[in-house]
Amino acid sequence: MDFLEKRYLFTPGPVPVASKVLLTMAQPLIHHRLPEFSKILEEIRENLRYLFQTEKEVYFFASSGTGAMEAAIVNLFSPGDSVIVVSAGKFGERWLELAISFGLNPVVISVPWGKAVKPEEVEETLKKNAQVKGILVQACETSTGVKHPIKEIAEIVKEREVVLVVDAISALGIYELPMDAWGIDVMIAGSQKALSLPPGLSFIAFSEKAYTLAQKAKLPKYYFNLFQEKKAYEKRTTAFTPAISLLIGLREMLKRIRELTLEKLFEHYRILSLACRKAVKALELEIFPEIPSESLTVIKTPESLRTGELLNFLRTKIGIVFAGGQDHLKGKIIRITHMGDQTLLDLVIALSALELGLNLFGYKIELGRGIKSVQEVLYEYYEKILS
Amino acid sequence: MDFLEKRYLFTPGPVPVASKVLLTMAQPLIHHRLPEFSKILEEIRENLRYLFQTEKEVYFFASSGTGAMEAAIVNLFSPGDSVIVVSAGKFGERWLELAISFGLNPVVISVPWGKAVKPEEVEETLKKNAQVKGILVQACETSTGVKHPIKEIAEIVKEREVVLVVDAISALGIYELPMDAWGIDVMIAGSQKALSLPPGLSFIAFSEKAYTLAQKAKLPKYYFNLFQEKKAYEKRTTAFTPAISLLIGLREMLKRIRELTLEKLFEHYRILSLACRKAVKALELEIFPEIPSESLTVIKTPESLRTGELLNFLRTKIGIVFAGGQDHLKGKIIRITHMGDQTLLDLVIALSALELGLNLFGYKIELGRGIKSVQEVLYEYYEKILS
Repeated sequence: MDFLEKRYLFTPGPVPVASKVLLTMAQPLIHHRLPEFSKILEEIRENLRYLFQTEKEVYFFASSGTGAMEAAIVNLFSPGDSVIVVSAGKFGERWLELAISFGLNPVVISVPWGKAVKPEEVEETLKKNAQVKGILVQACETSTGVKHPIKEIAEIVKEREVVLVVDAISALGIYELPMDAWGIDVMIAGSQKALSLPPGLSFIAFSEKAYTLAQKAKLPKYYFNLFQEKKAYEKRTTAFTPAISLLIGLREMLKRIRELTLEKLFEHYRILSLACRKAVKALELEIFPEIPSESLTVIKTPESLRTGELLNFLRTKIGIVFAGGQDHLKGKIIRITHMGDQTLLDLVIALSALELGLNLFGYKIELGRGIKSVQEVLYEYYEKILS
Repeated sequence: MDFLEKRYLFTPGPVPVASKVLLTMAQPLIHHRLPEFSKILEEIRENLRYLFQTEKEVYFFASSGTGAMEAAIVNLFSPGDSVIVVSAGKFGERWLELAISFGLNPVVISVPWGKAVKPEEVEETLKKNAQVKGILVQACETSTGVKHPIKEIAEIVKEREVVLVVDAISALGIYELPMDAWGIDVMIAGSQKALSLPPGLSFIAFSEKAYTLAQKAKLPKYYFNLFQEKKAYEKRTTAFTPAISLLIGLREMLKRIRELTLEKLFEHYRILSLACRKAVKALELEIFPEIPSESLTVIKTPESLRTGELLNFLRTKIGIVFAGGQDHLKGKIIRITHMGDQTLLDLVIALSALELGLNLFGYKIELGRGIKSVQEVLYEYYEKILS
């Protein structure tokens, strides 16, 4: 139906961005070396500390999330340093690639895709490898939808001379991850996931322990040099030209989050993901990850389903964009984001399209069965409020 | 859930406008007395003729739809002229108010709200009132969702010295209304309905018969003087300052409609309204109008339902805006637009919210029952395409 079709984005990065935020970003540019911008920077810095739940400074780069992952590596380590890499999917593999690229000595904890790492396994590996200086792990492994037990791992790492580096790109702002309270040493985030912004900004914060290690780090660095950013921050500016319009959007989103409170934000994502999972069960489908993150729902598709055709059909004919699986999961899973500017009614759209696609491409199920679950969650929620 | 809520507009004016169109309109203004603008004007004029299905010129005003209704009156008639007014709702009443305000002599065909006028009734009234110079009628009566039999009325009027004036504000572009082929003498449209634009533009076209009558019209006029606009058009401009940004949006929408073709546009609205009506039936609710227009679906609400509370709840808590009834229909109907930038998936949202509201405010119905009907329409449509 050509021009009457719309696009509905349900991928776990990029995520849907609120049009009010996009319009804020579409305002004429302001210059980043003027007092006006310093003020904005100050506000952003304060609200980032709120988001990270830390008293430390949070730095940002004009880069994708991978940039901040690289920043963690080059600022913390020296060539030949030993690190534990938790590899449970595409982004665990990215930690490994980064470690290898910078000449580190990785000890890999290989976890089957879809499973979460066990804290005991981390503890054992640490005991067997006394030389280890850091642990690289994801909070949420976006490729499988798994949630790793960060709190428990932090407990184990706390008393050791080891830094815990958490890629929280698809987790921070979605569920509880208090950096200081849990003792996370390095936390990384990106703009295009939980922050509901376009891609292009990454974030990183260091604990005291991480700073101490960073003093001795010998890996070469320039763009991602945190000490350079630290110096610039002290002068109320940034080391390099910042991504101004993205920061204007960030300022708006952080303000909104602060006004809403993290608690209510987490509750929103809890309800969204709960409703989606109920729907998946109602459709007699399986949730792929062992311990699912609230960031996205990953569905294991049944054998009979022509998943690739389904995704292609929804994208080109209905305007619904879901993510499929990567690498060996291609054709075997469907990933639906909860991150971004999304309500329960948007989820109704996603599931309506999913039900349609399932029926058209080899998995017959009664239409409306999944949606009903989302509606029931809405009903229960408002019935309580109204009574 | 505060900032995470969105607004979903389902009212029959204003209607949802595509963000691409809104962004086109947000471009820097161009001046309306430059050659650049004359070119745009030319393009708009040609595509308006396509939309109206006429070889005559289509004029526009910076005004609401009522402005073009007034333009019809002041350009066609003289004080004391006799006109037939078909009054079957709020907008029929507007014709009457206009006729009285300008000192015409109205003969009212009063039709109960929700019913369509019968062509025989028009014929009889014409026979009884030989002095009548014009008939004022709506194509779609937006307040009740009724579709009047314009083709049949035109047949009756054709051979007489009477002009047929059709307010097609919520009809033109939604279903077949070929001005020249059917012999409609004056056709009126507005930007905020079928054209899927913001309010602020009205349109009017005159047949040869209407022009002839207009030569003798003695009602005072200035802003809405069609002959003044005609003169300006000949100079490739407008008589007064046009609503430039709205015209830029109009140009975009007309281009899209032309590319899509009217045929496909009508098919889109046919399917949307069909799906909605199936859903209403599945919810065991009644369609209010006798002959429903494809422009909107008007639901007669059951006695047990607290309609006002439902509408208020959906608007303030869920962000869904439906229209209620006007005047004596207040609390008795719910109106859901199909006009504007809307897909079948958006309709799923509307019905999901409606089902929720019905259950919360006194009309228990199984959740998901209405939505299923929309999904079935989607399924049938795509199954045919794919097989």
